[in-house]
Amino acid sequence: MFSMPGTTCSDSTCYQLMQKGRLSTTKERLPLKHFTTNTDQCGSEILAEAENHEVKVKHKVTESSKMRCPVFYICFLLCLCLGLACVFCVCLWFNRWNGGFAWDGSELQFNWHPVLMVSGLVVVYGIGAVVYRIPLTWRQNKLPWKLLHAALMLLALILSIIGLQAVFYVHNAKGIPPLYSLHSWVGIAATALFATQWAVGMAGFLLPCSPMSLRKLLKPVHVWLGGSILLLSTAACISGINEKLFFSLKGNTTGSQPYSQLPPEALFANSLGVLIIAFSMVVLKILSNQQWQHPDSRPEDTAYTPLFQEEN
Amino acid sequence: MFSMPGTTCSDSTCYQLMQKGRLSTTKERLPLKHFTTNTDQCGSEILAEAENHEVKVKHKVTESSKMRCPVFYICFLLCLCLGLACVFCVCLWFNRWNGGFAWDGSELQFNWHPVLMVSGLVVVYGIGAVVYRIPLTWRQNKLPWKLLHAALMLLALILSIIGLQAVFYVHNAKGIPPLYSLHSWVGIAATALFATQWAVGMAGFLLPCSPMSLRKLLKPVHVWLGGSILLLSTAACISGINEKLFFSLKGNTTGSQPYSQLPPEALFANSLGVLIIAFSMVVLKILSNQQWQHPDSRPEDTAYTPLFQEEN
Repeated sequence: MFSMPGTTCSDSTCYQLMQKGRLSTTKERLPLKHFTTNTDQCGSEILAEAENHEVKVKHKVTESSKMRCPVFYICFLLCLCLGLACVFCVCLWFNRWNGGFAWDGSELQFNWHPVLMVSGLVVVYGIGAVVYRIPLTWRQNKLPWKLLHAALMLLALILSIIGLQAVFYVHNAKGIPPLYSLHSWVGIAATALFATQWAVGMAGFLLPCSPMSLRKLLKPVHVWLGGSILLLSTAACISGINEKLFFSLKGNTTGSQPYSQLPPEALFANSLGVLIIAFSMVVLKILSNQQWQHPDSRPEDTAYTPLFQEEN
Repeated sequence: MFSMPGTTCSDSTCYQLMQKGRLSTTKERLPLKHFTTNTDQCGSEILAEAENHEVKVKHKVTESSKMRCPVFYICFLLCLCLGLACVFCVCLWFNRWNGGFAWDGSELQFNWHPVLMVSGLVVVYGIGAVVYRIPLTWRQNKLPWKLLHAALMLLALILSIIGLQAVFYVHNAKGIPPLYSLHSWVGIAATALFATQWAVGMAGFLLPCSPMSLRKLLKPVHVWLGGSILLLSTAACISGINEKLFFSLKGNTTGSQPYSQLPPEALFANSLGVLIIAFSMVVLKILSNQQWQHPDSRPEDTAYTPLFQEEN
């Protein structure tokens, strides 16, 4: 027997099932259409059928978990590897072909811009978005994982802001007008949206005083904006790499091969773009798979657990 | 009483409920934990409680539909308006500031490239992706909507391929190497992925001989790649507009204002980029909302309806 919280559980089968905690822990809901309930059928028969179904559900959940978790962890590992590869490649590109890094208003200060934007707005942001989906965390207290999610997002935001500061500083020092290219419009929009998302997310999901109704309202918007920021940041990075290569590899003025001849720098930076796209696709894979959503966030779960009410 | 397809329905209440088709049409599943079933409680009591709960569910479904549908249709209308605005603006940009259109290997033939790529790979693609989510279609035969989805995607693919052909033709005529920029890599990857997605989707979801197990396996990959193609096509368009403006608005060579001074053309084309981003975000909003998914595509729906088995 499966009972609703607050109702009594009066027979031993119920007790055994409750003790085993099969359904309460997995939060599995049994669709009623799987049961026949007519006026000649008493509770004991229904119970037997329910138990039979429950065994099938347990089998399904176990099978599903067997199938699901390794694929999740492969995707998560791929996400981490691609993220590290992105950061490594963007650092190598500006260190090897563009003179390294400094903070003095020169071209070398500009080099911090792509490194910090790719690291913050793409890599740390993407990892921060998927960390909350790790199945291992589903049975644990949500708070530490929410805090980790918020902390990673804050780190990503700080890196992005410093990255923007680097380019504003250089533009200012060289008298170049700021924010004229479409790349800069998309990049600034991504960072502004991200800052808003972080502040609203913090107030809505972490402050104990925020009402449950607000959280329920915010949740789908938070998920949608999360994906949108990834879209914007990827578009900003791709257009930024493209723009930088057209600026750097003019061929005739610098003596180096032009971009159209695909010299080693161009090939390397284009490959960095491919890595960023691959990273974003893996993040999107994890975010789009509804089977990997935290059980409390699934649409069929009508109950919403406020952070500081049930868990702490 | 709510019965499983294939089981008998033996009392009048069941019959009335089935006749009203409340649950079978909405495919609403009642979580079992909302019911108390103990050995002292017979079917009639359970039935009364189930009916009571069903009334609440119906109320919830009605309330939910009231809330949900207008928001969906607002988003859908916004999607159509933004899509039309994107097509209008990209045509106007190349007609007013770049000499119009031709198919003769000149710059005028190049102008078809952005028009066809924005129209095909972004606008028609995005509308094709969300058309299957229209709630009005949920109670109807799925086949015409699947065919419309496939037809719009085919149109999008044809437009994109002609758009690519335009730029390859011009590059060939002018001796410019093809496929060197990151923009071109991302654009070609988006189109190749889209062509593969269309062919596999066609074979997997529309051919009557494709097994149900294959469809179940394909579905999450199809959804994920659908979102990924949108990500790639948006990134390709943003980087393409950015690149085109840097090429066209050099200032010193053409006598026109440089891009950095944001002349009217630059402001207009940047705004087109913002429209494309807004369009993609609205498409993402519709795709990411699980409440707007076709009921047969929701993860909690364990039954999978093959196209040519139950419907036709």
